[in-house]
Amino acid sequence: MNPVDIIRKKRDGGTLSREELEQFIAGYVNGEIPDYQMSAFLMAAYFSGMSPEEMLAFTDVMLHSGEVIDLSSIPGRKVDKHSTGGVGDKVSLILAPMVAACGVPVPMISGRGLGHTGGTVDKLESIPGFRTDLSIEAYKRVIAEVGVVLIGQTRNIVPADRKMYALRDVTATIESIPLIAGSIMSKKLAEGIDALVLDVKTGNGAFMQSTERSLALARTLVSIGTGMGKETIGFITAMDQPLGRNVGNWLEVVEAVECLRGKNVPDLMEVTTVLGGAMVWVGGKAKSIEEGMHMCRSAIWSGKAYEKFLLCVQRQGGDPSYIEQPARYPKSHYSLEVRSPREGIVRAFNTTQIGMLAIELGAGRMKIEDRIDPKAGMVFLKKIGDRVGRGEVLAEIHTDRHGKNEDIARRLVDCVDVGVEDVKAGPRVLTFVDRAGVHPWVTPTVH
Amino acid sequence: MNPVDIIRKKRDGGTLSREELEQFIAGYVNGEIPDYQMSAFLMAAYFSGMSPEEMLAFTDVMLHSGEVIDLSSIPGRKVDKHSTGGVGDKVSLILAPMVAACGVPVPMISGRGLGHTGGTVDKLESIPGFRTDLSIEAYKRVIAEVGVVLIGQTRNIVPADRKMYALRDVTATIESIPLIAGSIMSKKLAEGIDALVLDVKTGNGAFMQSTERSLALARTLVSIGTGMGKETIGFITAMDQPLGRNVGNWLEVVEAVECLRGKNVPDLMEVTTVLGGAMVWVGGKAKSIEEGMHMCRSAIWSGKAYEKFLLCVQRQGGDPSYIEQPARYPKSHYSLEVRSPREGIVRAFNTTQIGMLAIELGAGRMKIEDRIDPKAGMVFLKKIGDRVGRGEVLAEIHTDRHGKNEDIARRLVDCVDVGVEDVKAGPRVLTFVDRAGVHPWVTPTVH
Repeated sequence: MNPVDIIRKKRDGGTLSREELEQFIAGYVNGEIPDYQMSAFLMAAYFSGMSPEEMLAFTDVMLHSGEVIDLSSIPGRKVDKHSTGGVGDKVSLILAPMVAACGVPVPMISGRGLGHTGGTVDKLESIPGFRTDLSIEAYKRVIAEVGVVLIGQTRNIVPADRKMYALRDVTATIESIPLIAGSIMSKKLAEGIDALVLDVKTGNGAFMQSTERSLALARTLVSIGTGMGKETIGFITAMDQPLGRNVGNWLEVVEAVECLRGKNVPDLMEVTTVLGGAMVWVGGKAKSIEEGMHMCRSAIWSGKAYEKFLLCVQRQGGDPSYIEQPARYPKSHYSLEVRSPREGIVRAFNTTQIGMLAIELGAGRMKIEDRIDPKAGMVFLKKIGDRVGRGEVLAEIHTDRHGKNEDIARRLVDCVDVGVEDVKAGPRVLTFVDRAGVHPWVTPTVH
Repeated sequence: MNPVDIIRKKRDGGTLSREELEQFIAGYVNGEIPDYQMSAFLMAAYFSGMSPEEMLAFTDVMLHSGEVIDLSSIPGRKVDKHSTGGVGDKVSLILAPMVAACGVPVPMISGRGLGHTGGTVDKLESIPGFRTDLSIEAYKRVIAEVGVVLIGQTRNIVPADRKMYALRDVTATIESIPLIAGSIMSKKLAEGIDALVLDVKTGNGAFMQSTERSLALARTLVSIGTGMGKETIGFITAMDQPLGRNVGNWLEVVEAVECLRGKNVPDLMEVTTVLGGAMVWVGGKAKSIEEGMHMCRSAIWSGKAYEKFLLCVQRQGGDPSYIEQPARYPKSHYSLEVRSPREGIVRAFNTTQIGMLAIELGAGRMKIEDRIDPKAGMVFLKKIGDRVGRGEVLAEIHTDRHGKNEDIARRLVDCVDVGVEDVKAGPRVLTFVDRAGVHPWVTPTVH
């Protein structure tokens, strides 16, 4: 079929066959189909959507545009987690070693910061010496020997997505559920996993800010994963304030390490324990998510999760002395305290804007070639529902940059809504999605 | 504004400002905006459409991407006609000199064949020596001295459309009313006209096959022309069979010359006289379309229309001896008669397919670089409503090619529906559209 006919068919709401999708996407990867035809196709798909079978075929074609890692020689069900991205989301750093300590291998390939959200790879690289660019052979060795491995995207995995994502970014075709779902699921399925747990964020710091869009994405992701023969479940979790207290790469590693050593940061550990419990459950090591959550807590209390993390850092070239003694890490040149202009209760955060301000401090990239300052970021002393006095510290900012810090501090104050009436932060885990549908979720109290 | 934000705004159904459209289109023409961003924009516009003011701004920006010819030094209201394209549509060849003979200057810039439809420039170039590539200065001289000039697109006129049209062709973004309307109107307004008469074809040989789409396009074109300060009226005309009897470049010139010399080919002359009458009326030389139609007939009967055509051919380098004695023209190597397999009444033609078969005979291009054989084409001896006997000739085909002619003849027979019940061809001019709206049209009988 002619490429123009394929674009026209999608434009007119037709369902493309696996052969048509393969011809178009393989043609794009090998350069026969130019960018301008792919961008027209992507915009047509944005408007026309894809049928469930078409999304499966699309994901499968993307997946097989590159290497699909085979971990079948490693015993046990391999399980990963994917988050759609948020601010202060250091869940993976705690979760991966914690679940591995429960006996479920966690092969995790993560991304870098995107827009206002941070990326696990950038956080890991703030650990001196830590290498996220392992070869596939090294990746297999670490997962086999440690039970957890944490790397970044490699060139061989889903090259179609790499090329298409760069194009979508400059053609306003990011915000399409079929395209997002195909991108996420093809990369995750290429890791060699048997099952997947999804953390679909919702709220003013999420890419999908409305509940409806978040649920639609979660259902689509679950349906693709299940359709590809991998058990896939998802949770909708709140992203209406930074998760935990620290935002910024090394600051988030420090908070994750504190949690691995037993500190309870309530919102962060609620999300981490539910996702972890679910991973242990789909990994076949617990009879229920609740039992999985118990096992995750035990892995923290026993120190096994922390040991697993230390071992993983060592095996991936990181210097464990910084994990053992975070105070050894260099400090930012500038630290400012951001104080509340009035007395009251913290009611809300402008979470996306907080992510953007963190980038201005050096914690993320404005342009693809920007270097990240791993030390830069913010620490929030107050969260939604906390009482704050006039002049009391809301947050600290840390940066090596100068000239704009007073301005950033002022703009950060504007991101925190302090009012008079009593407000409580809602639950962090809102909804559970499996192939049977959407279920309300109430996090069980686990001691 | 960032190009991605402009694409996103159109994608989300927003109305782009003149500045935003100008930035995007000027950026595309000068190479700052790449093809892949333009194609995403075009697909977004395909789905989101444009508001009336936005279409005006879009057309104006396209128009001013190049040279806008100034004919204000030439006395009188300059009027042109545009047709959306059909099969056997040689109206312009008769109409332009006929209207000029009525005292209304006709500056006409036409296109080449596109898809299954022929193009006036290709027809003119079948006249030995005829030059359609005049400079703007020569164009102005001929219109000033002869009252009619017939040329092709020049590089300086609406370069944005040239570049965008080529891209739309390969990205399935042709069939969008705002994009079609902007393309047509910017090129017509660049000619230096004061008023415009539109021939929007409908039926199975038109680009817009349904009445609804044809009417929507006509209303949009009229609204843009009027909004740009040029009196613009339109007619919906039938394109459910070839117009006249001849299809193919030189064959159509011959039929046009016969009509200029007084022959009445009923369907062809109905359309030509109505459009011509309307041009004379909007050109200010008649008090009504009907009076304009009378003047057009007189211009034919008096021989003035034919003289004007001869003069125009001479002034544009053509050899008038071929117009005076068409039999001097070379003949095709092969001529075949296509006979009816049954007795009955001609009920319908597959007009688009007839246009495609004419291309196979050499009358049009499969690829942009193909050379046209000016002699090639078809002559229809039977039209809708005509009675035909078994084995009687329906049409002749003329070509220099060989090897496939029997097959083409067989496929041409399949394009003609011969049945038993009585059928009459409907009127050729169906609807009149002006800025007040859509009005049923009944062609007055003019003697």
